[in-house]
Amino acid sequence: MMNNLGGKSFILRLEMTNEQMKFAEIAAAVSKSGGDMVAIDVISTSPSFSIRDITVTTDSNSKMDTIIQRVEQLDGVKLLHVSDRTFLLHLGGKIETKPKTPITNRDDLSRVYTPDVARVCMAIHEQPDKAYNLTIKRNTIAVITDSSAVLGLGTIHPNAAMPVMEGKAMLFKQLANVDAFPISLNTRDTEEIIETIIRISPAFGGINLEDIASPRCFEIEERLRKELDIPVFHDDQHGTAVVLYAALLNALRTIGKSIKDVKVVVCGIGAAGVACSKILLAGGVKELIGVDRAGALHREESYDNPIWQWYAEHTNPNAVKGSLSEVIKGADVFIGLSAGGILKREDVQSMAKQPIVFAMANPEPEIKPELIEDIAAVVATGRSDYPNQINNVLCFPGMFRAALDCRAKEINEPMKLAAAEAIASVISDAELSPSYIIPSVFNDQVVPMIRRRVIEAAIQTGMARKIPKDIHHVYNFP
Amino acid sequence: MMNNLGGKSFILRLEMTNEQMKFAEIAAAVSKSGGDMVAIDVISTSPSFSIRDITVTTDSNSKMDTIIQRVEQLDGVKLLHVSDRTFLLHLGGKIETKPKTPITNRDDLSRVYTPDVARVCMAIHEQPDKAYNLTIKRNTIAVITDSSAVLGLGTIHPNAAMPVMEGKAMLFKQLANVDAFPISLNTRDTEEIIETIIRISPAFGGINLEDIASPRCFEIEERLRKELDIPVFHDDQHGTAVVLYAALLNALRTIGKSIKDVKVVVCGIGAAGVACSKILLAGGVKELIGVDRAGALHREESYDNPIWQWYAEHTNPNAVKGSLSEVIKGADVFIGLSAGGILKREDVQSMAKQPIVFAMANPEPEIKPELIEDIAAVVATGRSDYPNQINNVLCFPGMFRAALDCRAKEINEPMKLAAAEAIASVISDAELSPSYIIPSVFNDQVVPMIRRRVIEAAIQTGMARKIPKDIHHVYNFP
Repeated sequence: MMNNLGGKSFILRLEMTNEQMKFAEIAAAVSKSGGDMVAIDVISTSPSFSIRDITVTTDSNSKMDTIIQRVEQLDGVKLLHVSDRTFLLHLGGKIETKPKTPITNRDDLSRVYTPDVARVCMAIHEQPDKAYNLTIKRNTIAVITDSSAVLGLGTIHPNAAMPVMEGKAMLFKQLANVDAFPISLNTRDTEEIIETIIRISPAFGGINLEDIASPRCFEIEERLRKELDIPVFHDDQHGTAVVLYAALLNALRTIGKSIKDVKVVVCGIGAAGVACSKILLAGGVKELIGVDRAGALHREESYDNPIWQWYAEHTNPNAVKGSLSEVIKGADVFIGLSAGGILKREDVQSMAKQPIVFAMANPEPEIKPELIEDIAAVVATGRSDYPNQINNVLCFPGMFRAALDCRAKEINEPMKLAAAEAIASVISDAELSPSYIIPSVFNDQVVPMIRRRVIEAAIQTGMARKIPKDIHHVYNFP
Repeated sequence: MMNNLGGKSFILRLEMTNEQMKFAEIAAAVSKSGGDMVAIDVISTSPSFSIRDITVTTDSNSKMDTIIQRVEQLDGVKLLHVSDRTFLLHLGGKIETKPKTPITNRDDLSRVYTPDVARVCMAIHEQPDKAYNLTIKRNTIAVITDSSAVLGLGTIHPNAAMPVMEGKAMLFKQLANVDAFPISLNTRDTEEIIETIIRISPAFGGINLEDIASPRCFEIEERLRKELDIPVFHDDQHGTAVVLYAALLNALRTIGKSIKDVKVVVCGIGAAGVACSKILLAGGVKELIGVDRAGALHREESYDNPIWQWYAEHTNPNAVKGSLSEVIKGADVFIGLSAGGILKREDVQSMAKQPIVFAMANPEPEIKPELIEDIAAVVATGRSDYPNQINNVLCFPGMFRAALDCRAKEINEPMKLAAAEAIASVISDAELSPSYIIPSVFNDQVVPMIRRRVIEAAIQTGMARKIPKDIHHVYNFP
């Protein structure tokens, strides 16, 4: 399933006899099978043979297998080992926990540890909020999963979720200087997850919930928001919602429609579908219709799934009924968070003029962009190999940077809208086009923009417990 | 209580008019009150005045107060602010979580995060032990407290324990390259502590329990050792025991007595007292007597405290009864883990020839070393301002370095003995003296010595799941 996403790179360790150095043959074998030989490194040599690492890139697992087979068949070449660059990058984990200052002598030791640390402990004991000044709480969040909905892989072993959580921690630090620590829980019970997170919360200034299956993710987040005084944010819901909304704002900008006037059909009413719908409602969408296996959700029906019931009561003002193909007629915007291939070209043809199609199912979108490029005004997907990737990496680093900097009690709906508007605003009118509605995750304006707008929203809605110095003058806060 | 431990350093921010720069007067005021002016930094200047930071060191809080008062009274000097260097070092916390490789482009992103990370997740899912190769589990431990016995401060707010845990994490990384993450629990219930630690364990290769009150620390550690397949080590018990035992080995070396022949009295049978006694028994001590508020613990009595009951059954072979002053008579070694001032000079006089006195109560030892320097062969304390500090910083970094490197299932008694012997062996016969029985925490031989000896002990006792390459040849392991 992952073959067609991104490039692959691997390393062949070869033993070659010195009489028969066959770089040309190796290069030919690699190239014939659809790969590129990008580096040769000598590992060791002896009078009779040498060991070398050949780095190869290709774009699929099957090509990698063919390359390996062809190289193995060459005379005078012995394949010792195949290393995969992705696996090599993961050896020993991807993050480390480092002192911010060195301890080089007894004097340092007595300050950061006993006996002097006792004075710091007592200062915090007398006023526990001082933890924001004197401990890692100021800049540290937990990235916590129950490994029940990891990527598209579903439920996997708790150990197996760690590479995703570690990757997220890397991104938090690199993109927004947030210290994030990954925790993969050994339980998938809602109550146990909630109580465990509460019990480990004192170290942290925020909780990023990650890859927790629906519907338990809703209750876990809601309960933790009530019980903790630090922000709790299920990224799969809200990160996706914020970036989707940013992309929609810019898509509407390209065609000159207003968010308040469009009819939007959301397909797939799970965790992300609900969060996306909530932000659309908060942003002013009036005609919003959710579609799932039961067809369009509407208030004249009652649903066993409490999430669908809530959804039916809060959307679809005209109680429209029917299948996706029926309700999509005349819609301005399609938002897919469902399954590959379920949207047809005819469906898009039945939409309003200048239809916007966000087909975010992974790895296969609800409809392939190339099938509708002539009839859709704007198309976005969740994939990096098409234009307009809806990637929640755009949101979470800046969102938590903001939340930590203003010591937000919560991340509320106005803060999410502000983050989306910030992301959208990174693209100027001159730059904006149907194939460029969303900035790159490496655009260094994204985090500062989100930070400022989200902090302002937090202050305006009473969520901020501190006003950072650079925002200070704006509010003339004493 | 902390005044007489270690030096203090603080910074006075002063505004001075430019006509009246009174450095000599300031220096005199500082010096008269028992301080030293160690640095002057210009913060800002204007035509009429300047702002400067004056760094001052002194050895007590009361002297610091006097210095501040005197400086405040000087004409032409305005005290703007007093900063304490210890507090400054704690601003924003003492550790950070960093990526081990940068993510600079889409290619990097696709390897450390989606989509390629999915292949690493699936490899671990199929074989969960691969987490030791492909996640931070290989090199990361948790430092976990319930904030119930922090330093000598007793039970404090969970937030307030963090500076100690962070300090410990710094030491782990700096001294032994172990990544340690600090967690302060929001609960002090035994069952809740156990289940919480089990639930967050997948990320970690070991658990360092820290500052958990007796007696619950015993059950927590024992249960976790049974339920987890990673090492669990309550440092307050075993770290202290290992370093004490190392010091005792060297103290006995200086006077030529054997561990098997000495009579040892341990005063204070709490968590550390029990752990120290266990390592002494494992090391071969035969005549071991524990003393607490009930006097000497002996098998003819029954005790409500299950720890004391266990202790009485496993020590004191001759069922000696009586107070500390009675049972200390003829003892070769006194080990105090109790309270300041409870051992008298007369008690030491009644001990065997060449008595060894380890008075480790903090901050005030059971007897001040200067009171017995003429009659004791060797004296050690828990304090850094006397020779021979029993400091568990000597043990925990090397111990976990070893445990991680050989993927130990547990840290057992032979591994602790090996660590103690390693620490003792760092001091050569030529260096050894009654005032130098224990190496400095900054001695860079300590960690490698502990590592090698502990790994060897782990292999010999079947605790090692991996043999590191550098130990490999010793065992001729395939």
